[in-house]
Amino acid sequence: MPSALVLIANGTEEMEFTIVFDTLVRAGIECTSAFVPAEEEIGLAHAGGWGIDSPTVTCSRGVKIVSDTTLEALQSAGTKNVYDAVIIPGGAKGADTLARSQAVEELVASQYEGSRLIGMICAGSLVAKTSKLPKQPITSHPSVKRQLESDYEYKEESVVVSGKLVTSRGPGTAFPFAFKIIELLCGEAKVKEVRDPMVFPENNQ
Amino acid sequence: MPSALVLIANGTEEMEFTIVFDTLVRAGIECTSAFVPAEEEIGLAHAGGWGIDSPTVTCSRGVKIVSDTTLEALQSAGTKNVYDAVIIPGGAKGADTLARSQAVEELVASQYEGSRLIGMICAGSLVAKTSKLPKQPITSHPSVKRQLESDYEYKEESVVVSGKLVTSRGPGTAFPFAFKIIELLCGEAKVKEVRDPMVFPENNQ
Repeated sequence: MPSALVLIANGTEEMEFTIVFDTLVRAGIECTSAFVPAEEEIGLAHAGGWGIDSPTVTCSRGVKIVSDTTLEALQSAGTKNVYDAVIIPGGAKGADTLARSQAVEELVASQYEGSRLIGMICAGSLVAKTSKLPKQPITSHPSVKRQLESDYEYKEESVVVSGKLVTSRGPGTAFPFAFKIIELLCGEAKVKEVRDPMVFPENNQ
Repeated sequence: MPSALVLIANGTEEMEFTIVFDTLVRAGIECTSAFVPAEEEIGLAHAGGWGIDSPTVTCSRGVKIVSDTTLEALQSAGTKNVYDAVIIPGGAKGADTLARSQAVEELVASQYEGSRLIGMICAGSLVAKTSKLPKQPITSHPSVKRQLESDYEYKEESVVVSGKLVTSRGPGTAFPFAFKIIELLCGEAKVKEVRDPMVFPENNQ
């Protein structure tokens, strides 16, 4: 069974997080969510401001999600770098936290070196830059295009696949983003199997 | 500012819950999530198995969401029937709990009598029947069509509007469902304002 690690921080876009997590689970991918604290939150987490193993995260529009674990706990257990895919959701504040985290930078760099899949959506694509991934095709939410276009071949497509790096644009592209990750991990037949019972409109959104 | 109450139970479909909650918040609608226990969970909630005010709900694919309050707390406070919209998400087990709850039945009946908006998606449409809403156009997840088609004018459209009752089909129709509710509460201009920054693909999903 393929596995995916979905990162989450305070301010993460809850639709991007939930659509990817849920859709991947429907495909039989074993998903784990891991909390990443902002710099100013690190002390709080240690002081028990959250349960260390399962912090409650307040997402960008107020949905509160309890993560499965923390990135720090996975690092301590030596199981940070074993996932077939690592997913970086957007949400301005959440993506900023993920982009400033050295633990995330190391995780993404290791994932890239190991030729394992990395998915970034919306402002989450900023992590490509902070993790020093080399110049290649990329997309993101339009609001952070300027921060990426000089270092990457910036595209306006809903989902951009560049080797093992899959990037996407926002909540409105989260389903096609999730389906592309399923296709790459499980094959096209699985996408159809997962997609059909979700009852998408034929040609409109 | 319009207000919406979004119900949640163990087994609720997390994408349907989150897409509606988040998208309505983006439109400036004040959203509150309220937990409804299954019959066998009522004792647990009272015994402190959850914090009474904000229980942690395990959704259909394992995402854990902390609700803002409980339907029981709103009932005690006398603020159960003040919302411009009540939303019933799907997810087989979660929708079953909502459909078996007398508190939900009373809420939906009162909402209907008061000509205030009710949104039901996926298996959540079963609540129309248990709340004894009269025969009218409806849709739902295809898996519960048989339970609805003799009592309602069953439709296969992504979103069906019948007066103040708005129904929809599944995770794949959750965005158009949310946008229809925004249109009815806030007008069409607000839909465009909310939709554009979400970066939907032009003509595909």
